Amino acid sequence: MKTYLDCIPCILRQALESARTVSSEPLLHEQMLRYALQTLVDQDLTQSPPVIGQLVHRRLRELTGEADPYRAAKERFNRLTLQMLPELTAFVENAADSFESAVRLAIAGNVIDLGVHGDLDEEHVRRFITEAQSAVLTGDVGRFKSFVQQAEKILYLTDNAGEIVLDRLLIERLPLSRVTVAVRGEAILNDATREDAQTAGLDRLVRVMDNGSDAPGTLLEDCSQSFQRCFHESDLIIAKGQGNFETLSQTPGNIFFLFKAKCPVIAAHAGVPLNAMVIQPTEYTASI
Amino acid sequence: MKTYLDCIPCILRQALESARTVSSEPLLHEQMLRYALQTLVDQDLTQSPPVIGQLVHRRLRELTGEADPYRAAKERFNRLTLQMLPELTAFVENAADSFESAVRLAIAGNVIDLGVHGDLDEEHVRRFITEAQSAVLTGDVGRFKSFVQQAEKILYLTDNAGEIVLDRLLIERLPLSRVTVAVRGEAILNDATREDAQTAGLDRLVRVMDNGSDAPGTLLEDCSQSFQRCFHESDLIIAKGQGNFETLSQTPGNIFFLFKAKCPVIAAHAGVPLNAMVIQPTEYTASI
Repeated sequence: MKTYLDCIPCILRQALESARTVSSEPLLHEQMLRYALQTLVDQDLTQSPPVIGQLVHRRLRELTGEADPYRAAKERFNRLTLQMLPELTAFVENAADSFESAVRLAIAGNVIDLGVHGDLDEEHVRRFITEAQSAVLTGDVGRFKSFVQQAEKILYLTDNAGEIVLDRLLIERLPLSRVTVAVRGEAILNDATREDAQTAGLDRLVRVMDNGSDAPGTLLEDCSQSFQRCFHESDLIIAKGQGNFETLSQTPGNIFFLFKAKCPVIAAHAGVPLNAMVIQPTEYTASI
Repeated sequence: MKTYLDCIPCILRQALESARTVSSEPLLHEQMLRYALQTLVDQDLTQSPPVIGQLVHRRLRELTGEADPYRAAKERFNRLTLQMLPELTAFVENAADSFESAVRLAIAGNVIDLGVHGDLDEEHVRRFITEAQSAVLTGDVGRFKSFVQQAEKILYLTDNAGEIVLDRLLIERLPLSRVTVAVRGEAILNDATREDAQTAGLDRLVRVMDNGSDAPGTLLEDCSQSFQRCFHESDLIIAKGQGNFETLSQTPGNIFFLFKAKCPVIAAHAGVPLNAMVIQPTEYTASI
C-alpha cells in the first residue's frame, strides 16, 4: 500500500505520541517531530507508511539512547494476555468451531497496537478481546482453513507483543511441524521480537525466526536472506496486523492478512468497514 | 499563543482538507501538503498557528488561481444565518436578558469555522445555534457588559462569514456610535471580509474597516497602519473566534475573546473545557 496523503498528518501525530510515550523531555518531542517533518518533505509516497515508521523509530532510539524503549510496554501487554490465556484457551476448546474461535481471538489481539493508540490501556484490551469472541468477522474463514489444511509450509508473521500470546491460540491449531513463526529482527515500537515469542512459549511449539529487519511491517528487501528464502518457499503466509498488510498487500503469494482495521485509510484500501476484524487474502492468492 | 507541537499534525490535516475543499485535483492536494511540510520544517514555533495558516492559504490561492476560493461557501453560510436571523432576533428581544442572549448567539455563530471542520454542514450549524440558546457560557458576561457600558471606543473583530450575521445581534446591543467593526483585509479561508459585512448589513449600522491583512487571525504587525491605530486607540476590543484568540491572547489591551473552543490545544491554553462557549478577557484586561 502506498502512503496516502491522509497518512502524513497521522505519521506526524504518531511520531509525537511515540516521543511522549518513551520520554518526558519536551526538547526530544520537538526533535522527533522536526525529524519526521524533514523525512516527509522529500518522501516517495509510492512507498508504504512503515518505510517512514522505520526511520522515525530508529531516530527515536538514537535520541533516547535506548535500544528498546517499548520493552516495559511490551512486557505489560504480554503479562496481561498471558493472564487471560487459560480462560481464552478453555473458551476456544469449548467453542462449536474451535478454529474460527482461535482466528477470532488472534485478530482481537491486534488491538494491542501502540503505533495506532499510544494511550491504549489494559481495560480496553480486555474488553475488546471479550467482545471479539462474538463480533462479526469480515472475510472467509472457511477458505482460510482449507489453505491451512493443504499448505506444506506455513509462515506466520506476528505483529505486536501481547498480541503474540493470543496468536498462540491459532498457531496451536495449525499443523505445527509445517509452521514457522517470524518476529521482527530488532526492537521497533511494541512489535514482537524473539524475546516475546519466547515469553509466549512459541519456541517450544514451532520453529521461530526473526526477519532481520527493524521495520514495523515486512519490507521484504530489508529482511535477511534466510527470511526472504523462507517467505518465498512458503505456500501459505499468515500476516498479522496493519503493518504487515501495508507492506505486503501488493506482494505476490498466498498471503492471508488477519488484522483489525483501526485506521480509516487502511480500511478503505482493504475495502472493509472501519474497526472491522478482517481476514483477507491478497488478490494474488489462488490455490495451493 | 505559540504553535504547540500538537498543532503541527493538525495544520497539515487542515492544509489537506482545504485543498480538497477548493479543488478535486489530487496533484494540487499533494502540492499543498508538501508546501505545508516544507513551511513547517523550519518554522519558528514561538509564532502563532495563523502565521502558518496565512502562508498555506496564500499558496492555495496561487495554486488554484482563485482569489477567493471559499466565496461560495461564505455565501452559503451567510444565506443560512440570514434566513435564521428574524427568528433569532425575536428570540433575543424576548429573552429575559437580551444582552446575554445576543452574546450567546454571537459565540454560537463561531461554530461556522471551515478551518476546523471543512466538512461542516448546515444542519449542524442550525442545531448548534439552537442548542446554544440554553448552553452553559464559560466566562463572566456581567464583567463584559460593564466594559461595554464604559468604553469610549469599541473595536469588534469579526471572524467567519455566516458567523458575522449572528454578530449583528450583539453589535446592535452595543453603543453603535462608538463601535468599529473590522474584517480581514483579503480573502482567507471562510473568514469574513468587507463583502460579508455588507451582506450582514453592518455597514449601515456602524463604521466598518478592514485590517489590511490576509492572516486567519489578527497579526498586528501585518495589519494596516490605520487598523493598528484604531486597535491601540480602542479601550475595548471584542475579538471573535479561535484565530483572533491565537494571535492576540498575549497582546496588551482590554480584549475580550468570544469563541467556541473547538480545538483541544486552544481549550487547554485558555483553561476551558473542549467545546465550551467562551467569553474571556486577556490577563492584561484591567479596567477602563
